[in-house]
Amino acid sequence: MKNRGLLLVVSGPAGAGKGTICGTFMQRHPQVHLSVSATTRAPRAMEQEGIHYYFLQQQQFEQMIAQDAFIEWANFCGNYYGTPRAKVEEKLAAGQDVLLEIEVQGAMQVKKKFPEAVLIFILPPSMEELRSRIIGRGTETMEVIDRRMARAAEEVELAQQYDYFILNDTVEEATDRFESIVQAEKIKVSRNLTLLKEVRGQ
Amino acid sequence: MKNRGLLLVVSGPAGAGKGTICGTFMQRHPQVHLSVSATTRAPRAMEQEGIHYYFLQQQQFEQMIAQDAFIEWANFCGNYYGTPRAKVEEKLAAGQDVLLEIEVQGAMQVKKKFPEAVLIFILPPSMEELRSRIIGRGTETMEVIDRRMARAAEEVELAQQYDYFILNDTVEEATDRFESIVQAEKIKVSRNLTLLKEVRGQ
Repeated sequence: MKNRGLLLVVSGPAGAGKGTICGTFMQRHPQVHLSVSATTRAPRAMEQEGIHYYFLQQQQFEQMIAQDAFIEWANFCGNYYGTPRAKVEEKLAAGQDVLLEIEVQGAMQVKKKFPEAVLIFILPPSMEELRSRIIGRGTETMEVIDRRMARAAEEVELAQQYDYFILNDTVEEATDRFESIVQAEKIKVSRNLTLLKEVRGQ
Repeated sequence: MKNRGLLLVVSGPAGAGKGTICGTFMQRHPQVHLSVSATTRAPRAMEQEGIHYYFLQQQQFEQMIAQDAFIEWANFCGNYYGTPRAKVEEKLAAGQDVLLEIEVQGAMQVKKKFPEAVLIFILPPSMEELRSRIIGRGTETMEVIDRRMARAAEEVELAQQYDYFILNDTVEEATDRFESIVQAEKIKVSRNLTLLKEVRGQ
């Protein structure tokens, strides 16, 4: 019997580098299914339907909420964001691993509904380093930077609810650690009771 | 603050290859402390004091039992075997990882005393494969082979109490999996609450 896939949930403050780490991980493991979120906010330039987001009307989104069609959802600044359930369930059942890159609040919802999910928090080497990375982008005002830093501190507080953390010192090393987590989770006894029976010849 | 070392406990039926995997792992990670067991059985040819075992008199061993100086011990066929506590505690406290290669009953004792220990069970690809490996050694009578197989089946039954299993198809791959487990365990949030506080700057 084929095992269910792993549900991998990755979060972390903006600027900690979770997008880069997930991207590098997906390059190394293209067989993993990267879940695409749905949102009601307007597409930005370059954003493509079904690749960056599924862009929905508010009514469509609220109908899906009513049908329990999201694994997690939230409303930020008047826009909905959520992870559609159907494809995630289908891939997991087929034994394919699924990667969600979502906010901490969403991750907490996922953990409740899927206790077997693997929650990974990406950490910057330090909050000072995070600040200099955000400043380094050169695109943000000091006010935005301060707001991001306050938010990052709140998010790191919630990191204690996660299963693993990855300190993002270099992308290569951080991605190696991500791979180790996936490898180790796959050979947990609790996920392989059927295989153990098979080895005993039962 | 330095984290405590990991207490790695490896078991598996005779013939599954746990000695080879642990040996390869130790070659790659010589900084890990390989715990040496104590026994009251007589040394075999080539066995060296302090390398293969600490060879003790029965009275010495029983005195150490009375002093709770073993993490785990058992009596097989009239001989005592056990893991002396002092060095293991000292290395863990200094942040060094410790590897115990012990029987399943001993591993269960360790898990009770050190709930944070990481229990790894080495599995042969199948029981048929195990039998052919034991036969392949060419040194055992059929009676011994049958006894070993019955014992192996009992041990695999207990594998369900372990945290991870490693299917020993090839030594290289099995050792890679061992490394992933160690890597992943080191970045579990539950083992790093102090570090998380440091990142928050508290």
